[in-house]
Amino acid sequence: MMEKQKLNILFIGGGNIAGILKSELKDHIDLCWYYDLKKTDLDCQYLERFEIPRETDIVVECASVEAVKEFGIDILKSGKDFYIISSGAFADEEFRATFLAELKNSSSNVYIPSGAIGGIDIVRAVRNYVEKVVLTTKKPPKAFGIEEIQEPKTIFSGNAVEAIKKFPQNTNVSVTLSLALGSFEKVTVNVVADPNVNENIHEINIFSSVGNYTVIHKNKPSPNPKTSYLTPLSLAAAIKRNIEKFKIG
Amino acid sequence: MMEKQKLNILFIGGGNIAGILKSELKDHIDLCWYYDLKKTDLDCQYLERFEIPRETDIVVECASVEAVKEFGIDILKSGKDFYIISSGAFADEEFRATFLAELKNSSSNVYIPSGAIGGIDIVRAVRNYVEKVVLTTKKPPKAFGIEEIQEPKTIFSGNAVEAIKKFPQNTNVSVTLSLALGSFEKVTVNVVADPNVNENIHEINIFSSVGNYTVIHKNKPSPNPKTSYLTPLSLAAAIKRNIEKFKIG
Repeated sequence: MMEKQKLNILFIGGGNIAGILKSELKDHIDLCWYYDLKKTDLDCQYLERFEIPRETDIVVECASVEAVKEFGIDILKSGKDFYIISSGAFADEEFRATFLAELKNSSSNVYIPSGAIGGIDIVRAVRNYVEKVVLTTKKPPKAFGIEEIQEPKTIFSGNAVEAIKKFPQNTNVSVTLSLALGSFEKVTVNVVADPNVNENIHEINIFSSVGNYTVIHKNKPSPNPKTSYLTPLSLAAAIKRNIEKFKIG
Repeated sequence: MMEKQKLNILFIGGGNIAGILKSELKDHIDLCWYYDLKKTDLDCQYLERFEIPRETDIVVECASVEAVKEFGIDILKSGKDFYIISSGAFADEEFRATFLAELKNSSSNVYIPSGAIGGIDIVRAVRNYVEKVVLTTKKPPKAFGIEEIQEPKTIFSGNAVEAIKKFPQNTNVSVTLSLALGSFEKVTVNVVADPNVNENIHEINIFSSVGNYTVIHKNKPSPNPKTSYLTPLSLAAAIKRNIEKFKIG
């Protein structure tokens, strides 16, 4: 747990998400660096080659599944706390096993924030009582190149393992849900072309012996259409939570 | 942050919730004590007078708003981490200010789990972008002593400050939402007698410039009708999160 009020942050990825984080955390950052394949306009010191400066407090991945796989083990060896946006890396069972084994011997803590979805607090609480969790992503038909349908049409339906292979756009969300639940098999993913919606909608239905819960997300368009704005905000909230002593949720 | 795999826990309140926690955390507890006005059947050492044993790792309040107010400052002075179910204590502005001032000089961390509601992860993420949050609690009319209505009837509507005064049954939920959001005024609470529902339903609507989010909770009846089962499970999940190094959500 950080007790410092200001952090030294190493960003992996110097793009749009790192920029939002830099701005959201502006009162909480002392030094910052970023590694990326090329220099960007992020207002932190650019590292041409990947390294973890000794003064680093936390490493924040906002790049890609590949970056988590390439640098994840080195980060654990450094003992620095590690925040991950591209949770999809843990869809790879072999990498997951290697990473978790290394984590046992590391002094790092690893944080996977809720990201583009919420209600992960419910999933974690009821995980031992869950029958199934269903993630339904609805988009306007034209998002799938479909025109002129009157009724919603299911484009894909399967468990999280299948979804990761066949519908990779939803990978991070499917994996974060599965990790929170402790099971990839109990998560069903549906992707629906729905003529009744104008925006992308994620709906999560949690069926458990404790109760049934529904979480509906209607994200507004974000500066980077591939990532909802909720994702970097969720990561910033996770970092702030560790600085603050009064922790809600 | 706990790095220990087994904790010594002091429970304040030896009732139903402490019992569920004891069972949920059975693999993670070494020593445990509880303080209560009278001895209960909780399988931990009973303390007749409130004290914080030196070996305590965490203090867990599962008693009442009054207990938080009576013992909260002493717990912060002890420097032990403190988990609170009765967040309603922080509806009292004077107590909140005193507590937060003491926390600044304490080595304690204070945890207020999501409790009977979820989606607190979304509220925390978008808090700087929120226009309003609406909590609607729907119950069957007979829960309010009302019979024979055909249409839903709003029993109460007001902001969280008013709700705490006039509809105290919802206090913990209203306060946790308000603390996550950082505002008591931006939370509207509606209480509705609804002939179309058979169970208690909490619905949270979050309106923000990032997106709009809805979280619907249909809790099943719990052993203690005054507290949903989700509440102790959420607290257990918060404690486990601090033991584990791989933290989701």
